Amino acid sequence: MSHSVPVFDPKLDLVLERVVDVPPELVWAAWTTPEHVKVWFTPAPWKTVDCAIDLRPGGRFFTVMRSPEGQDFPNTGCYLDVVENRRLVWTDALLPGYRPANDASGGPGMGFFTAMILLEAQGSGTKYTAIAIHRDEKGRKIHEDMGFHTGWGKALDQLVAHMKKK
Amino acid sequence: MSHSVPVFDPKLDLVLERVVDVPPELVWAAWTTPEHVKVWFTPAPWKTVDCAIDLRPGGRFFTVMRSPEGQDFPNTGCYLDVVENRRLVWTDALLPGYRPANDASGGPGMGFFTAMILLEAQGSGTKYTAIAIHRDEKGRKIHEDMGFHTGWGKALDQLVAHMKKK
Repeated sequence: MSHSVPVFDPKLDLVLERVVDVPPELVWAAWTTPEHVKVWFTPAPWKTVDCAIDLRPGGRFFTVMRSPEGQDFPNTGCYLDVVENRRLVWTDALLPGYRPANDASGGPGMGFFTAMILLEAQGSGTKYTAIAIHRDEKGRKIHEDMGFHTGWGKALDQLVAHMKKK
Repeated sequence: MSHSVPVFDPKLDLVLERVVDVPPELVWAAWTTPEHVKVWFTPAPWKTVDCAIDLRPGGRFFTVMRSPEGQDFPNTGCYLDVVENRRLVWTDALLPGYRPANDASGGPGMGFFTAMILLEAQGSGTKYTAIAIHRDEKGRKIHEDMGFHTGWGKALDQLVAHMKKK
């Protein structure tokens, strides 16, 4: 079966593109294993204190982020496209089992978003592309102001540092 | 890759289950071919005057329904799960390419919904299950009051009558 081609819209979407020196298989493992996610997913001093993954289209991607003050922020997403070592897509617009969600988990006013992680082998490393797809320009702006680039970049640094120990 | 198992929740979902005397291959063709959709999709005297299908996860399912008074109602959905002759899942909570949608296309107050068509061979016919999955009880109620069972049932009668001519 053919798969969807992501179409990047600079007015609505945010993108982080980097080359990292761990191979796609390790980046994939970092994103799809709760034990790894708990270590690297949240830029310090935030923590990820819980994670559950049902890795298939329609399956659950659940995390709980804890603020430095000790407040917990649960997030529930639904996987949409799962291609091992290549592409991981999920959204908070749907709950697991594809049920439309009531509330966006990303933050006040941001609205729902869909995330795509695209991996491509490059030498012994990985060309890493993270895309956040919003329904409107307001959602994109709020996500950007919340610190998308810094936050996702710092989390990626933590991912690489963690997986290099493997 | 394993696929999602639909979980029916009677408080939130609506279901139409019937056995029809055309085989799954013909029901599948009826649902996935614009020329067929335009013939059977809307209970008369409504008409379906346009249809576009990009049959893959993330692809577009587009229809325009025309009321007896001549008003057009365009609907855009995104396919989520496509298993030939077995299972077709789409939602209006996402636009094609998995972008979160701004407005539900189902009708005032109904909210987004996800539709699943499940097909199973039964003798020379098909066990046909259509499930409409809502985010809350209100959405289910509004969809039911709009005439889900009558409307989807009448459309299915039209589908069977049309495909029997093939």
